Amino acid sequence: MRVCVYPGSFDPITNGHLDIIERASKIFDKLVVAVLVNPSKKPAFTLEERVELIKDCVRENPCIEVDSFSGLLIDYMKQKGANIVIKGLRVVTDFEYEFQMALLNKNLNPCIETIFMMTNNKFSYLSSSMIKEVARLGANIHEFVPEVIKHKILDKLLM
Amino acid sequence: MRVCVYPGSFDPITNGHLDIIERASKIFDKLVVAVLVNPSKKPAFTLEERVELIKDCVRENPCIEVDSFSGLLIDYMKQKGANIVIKGLRVVTDFEYEFQMALLNKNLNPCIETIFMMTNNKFSYLSSSMIKEVARLGANIHEFVPEVIKHKILDKLLM
Amino acid sequence: MRVCVYPGSFDPITNGHLDIIERASKIFDKLVVAVLVNPSKKPAFTLEERVELIKDCVRENPCIEVDSFSGLLIDYMKQKGANIVIKGLRVVTDFEYEFQMALLNKNLNPCIETIFMMTNNKFSYLSSSMIKEVARLGANIHEFVPEVIKHKILDKLLM
Amino acid sequence: MRVCVYPGSFDPITNGHLDIIERASKIFDKLVVAVLVNPSKKPAFTLEERVELIKDCVRENPCIEVDSFSGLLIDYMKQKGANIVIKGLRVVTDFEYEFQMALLNKNLNPCIETIFMMTNNKFSYLSSSMIKEVARLGANIHEFVPEVIKHKILDKLLM
Amino acid sequence: MRVCVYPGSFDPITNGHLDIIERASKIFDKLVVAVLVNPSKKPAFTLEERVELIKDCVRENPCIEVDSFSGLLIDYMKQKGANIVIKGLRVVTDFEYEFQMALLNKNLNPCIETIFMMTNNKFSYLSSSMIKEVARLGANIHEFVPEVIKHKILDKLLM
Amino acid sequence: MRVCVYPGSFDPITNGHLDIIERASKIFDKLVVAVLVNPSKKPAFTLEERVELIKDCVRENPCIEVDSFSGLLIDYMKQKGANIVIKGLRVVTDFEYEFQMALLNKNLNPCIETIFMMTNNKFSYLSSSMIKEVARLGANIHEFVPEVIKHKILDKLLM
Repeated sequence: MRVCVYPGSFDPITNGHLDIIERASKIFDKLVVAVLVNPSKKPAFTLEERVELIKDCVRENPCIEVDSFSGLLIDYMKQKGANIVIKGLRVVTDFEYEFQMALLNKNLNPCIETIFMMTNNKFSYLSSSMIKEVARLGANIHEFVPEVIKHKILDKLLM
Repeated sequence: MRVCVYPGSFDPITNGHLDIIERASKIFDKLVVAVLVNPSKKPAFTLEERVELIKDCVRENPCIEVDSFSGLLIDYMKQKGANIVIKGLRVVTDFEYEFQMALLNKNLNPCIETIFMMTNNKFSYLSSSMIKEVARLGANIHEFVPEVIKHKILDKLLM
Repeated sequence: MRVCVYPGSFDPITNGHLDIIERASKIFDKLVVAVLVNPSKKPAFTLEERVELIKDCVRENPCIEVDSFSGLLIDYMKQKGANIVIKGLRVVTDFEYEFQMALLNKNLNPCIETIFMMTNNKFSYLSSSMIKEVARLGANIHEFVPEVIKHKILDKLLM
Repeated sequence: MRVCVYPGSFDPITNGHLDIIERASKIFDKLVVAVLVNPSKKPAFTLEERVELIKDCVRENPCIEVDSFSGLLIDYMKQKGANIVIKGLRVVTDFEYEFQMALLNKNLNPCIETIFMMTNNKFSYLSSSMIKEVARLGANIHEFVPEVIKHKILDKLLM
Repeated sequence: MRVCVYPGSFDPITNGHLDIIERASKIFDKLVVAVLVNPSKKPAFTLEERVELIKDCVRENPCIEVDSFSGLLIDYMKQKGANIVIKGLRVVTDFEYEFQMALLNKNLNPCIETIFMMTNNKFSYLSSSMIKEVARLGANIHEFVPEVIKHKILDKLLM
Repeated sequence: MRVCVYPGSFDPITNGHLDIIERASKIFDKLVVAVLVNPSKKPAFTLEERVELIKDCVRENPCIEVDSFSGLLIDYMKQKGANIVIKGLRVVTDFEYEFQMALLNKNLNPCIETIFMMTNNKFSYLSSSMIKEVARLGANIHEFVPEVIKHKILDKLLM
């Protein structure tokens, strides 16, 4: 069974992330969406909220597991029996950063492969931080996040 | 009448910004230089100071209005009766960020057009943050900002 | 009256070009779509065909003129009473080339301004050469070119 | 069974290509290395030679098939029962071109997924055209191509 | 005597930095590795520690001096009798930032030349911040920093 | 004595090239400007003309030798007793190509170092091919090439 991990902050999950999740879940037997616990960042949504929002969106797909991890990605992957990392790319700046991370992970564990999928061009401008910023300023975010979690996101951001 | 908005932090305004302002003001009937109020950033110059410095530089051009705004750019534009955003581009990194912002704004309001002008290559290395950094370290900034505001900028930064 | 020139090879015109044309025509009083005669390239469509295809697409917009030119762009612009060049940008590679051209033109005539519009992200992958290539291989190009000229393009390419 | 196609000119195959082939063959059940017949290019090696050189390198891996195709990649994939395209990325310029191709293929057939693997940084400078150029000038190419095909390549290029 | 300055934060020094130092020291008569005192950043290692770590690595090369500086780089260079700045480049993002800095320095003092060396592709993914991050998460960093300072770095980071 | 080679097509030499030549000649004891004989390209100027044009421009600088070479750059460098290659960079696209060449040369001969200087931003848009193109169309090229060779260039191009 080929298990693939899609790591990220998902603060919060966007339609761009969900597009990658849905497409990757068709390619691999199992996809673990893994929310990163990063003690040096202050997320807008708690770890539990971020995991919950993702679960709300992917409930109906039995190939997807939603989880969280701290520590090194390569250690987490060993624990999950996974050797494929999936990352979405939107722009050149993403590309360079993700390439460096992929080379680093390959150096730390040569069995780990990172594969990249391009984000649907419909979502090429979407990022969690932009959504948070414009939502707080009163923009309608219905094209950026699934309907099912839109209110939870607004409730939190406009609190 | 074609009204164009040139939004930015202008903390402080540079010769690079002024080059864009002067050139854009020849293309459109009216140019609004709009200083963004961003509560999550700590500018070196207050909003009033930033507006004042720009006014000092563009006094003689009747097509230019200097203003400030908070909230969504698209809301501010509606209020000003403007549908054109102007942005200066210097380098590839600018390009990608500004493209994402332009796509986002177009999604939030399809009537908004963002047009880009390239910064004069003489000023391609200029940024407000570099000017602040080198001024504080004692560099002569007379080629980076207009003579008329140079002392106000130094007075503030070397306080 | 602000006259703007949109120069290019248009071999053939695509939905990406038309998106720029339509949006630019709302910003300026008059838009001249100017097909470049480049003796060192062998276009798939003759100059007359390229002009005709564009005319087929923009007939209903009275602000648009379709024309052709050879020689220096700056000379052509003087002749048309235009001082604004419009270019569409899709990707970083475009950006660098177009920046160099814009700087060159500004050097040859400082009155010329080049302004850039980003191509709708829906069309970010479109180019005349890709359309020609996939059409010749039998792909359906109905999403890439307007319906009204699709058959003319296929007739020519599949000849 | 997940079948993946790795298309390219392979004129000739390099250690960079082989690195991608070997790694991709561990991720998918079957990998088809598909040499593109492009009538508009004049390759240094004939189609038969290019296929043969790849076969010489991958003989021992039963998951790999070496084949060739003309026409649209999406049509070839349907015929092979494959829905995953694999591409190697080395640099930003690759990235932009491959992104455009991937978006185009997704538009032509939404079932096709393109996934990207980064080339091992040890081979980031390798390309078929550079190998041909330096081999013809007398350089030792033993680090660029497998030993088993080095002489065949030199025999052809130095003919 | 041609004196060259290699400025940086070196928080801490990496094998990538050392590769540039070793290669640059063969090109110029004297190389000054100059640790920047930047009051606005909070380094993980103190200035003294950073200088000490570099000294531990370059002791045996008599052409190298390890020093620190605050203020403008151009002022420091005058004081050292140096007119060449050396910078390592890894990726496009580096390139744009370093180009802007080089143009700025050239504007502040036209006698200053910045020359760039590319980082060995073996180290293209290395950065001080990535080393700190993965070391804190428990990764083995023996391929990223010289053996002689590895324990000092781990002692500090895992404190 | 540190000998540096500046290789290129120089078809023809531009003010951008001369800016690099002048600055590099101050850093190294001797600079060899080496015109590449590339049998697969058809230059506008013959090898002799290209060498002559460069000589016309650098006559007064005793540290500069103008020469030509065919074959591998690393072989030519050995023959000249040089181990430093100098290249000018203007834009990101240059950067990626030159990085690949530098890595290739370092692989072919580890003693060869390639160092990069950024082109003066005043000349960032200049290239030999653009000069040829606009000169043939009748543009005034006096800002692009030295006065002393301007007429030779025009005589040839407008023949």
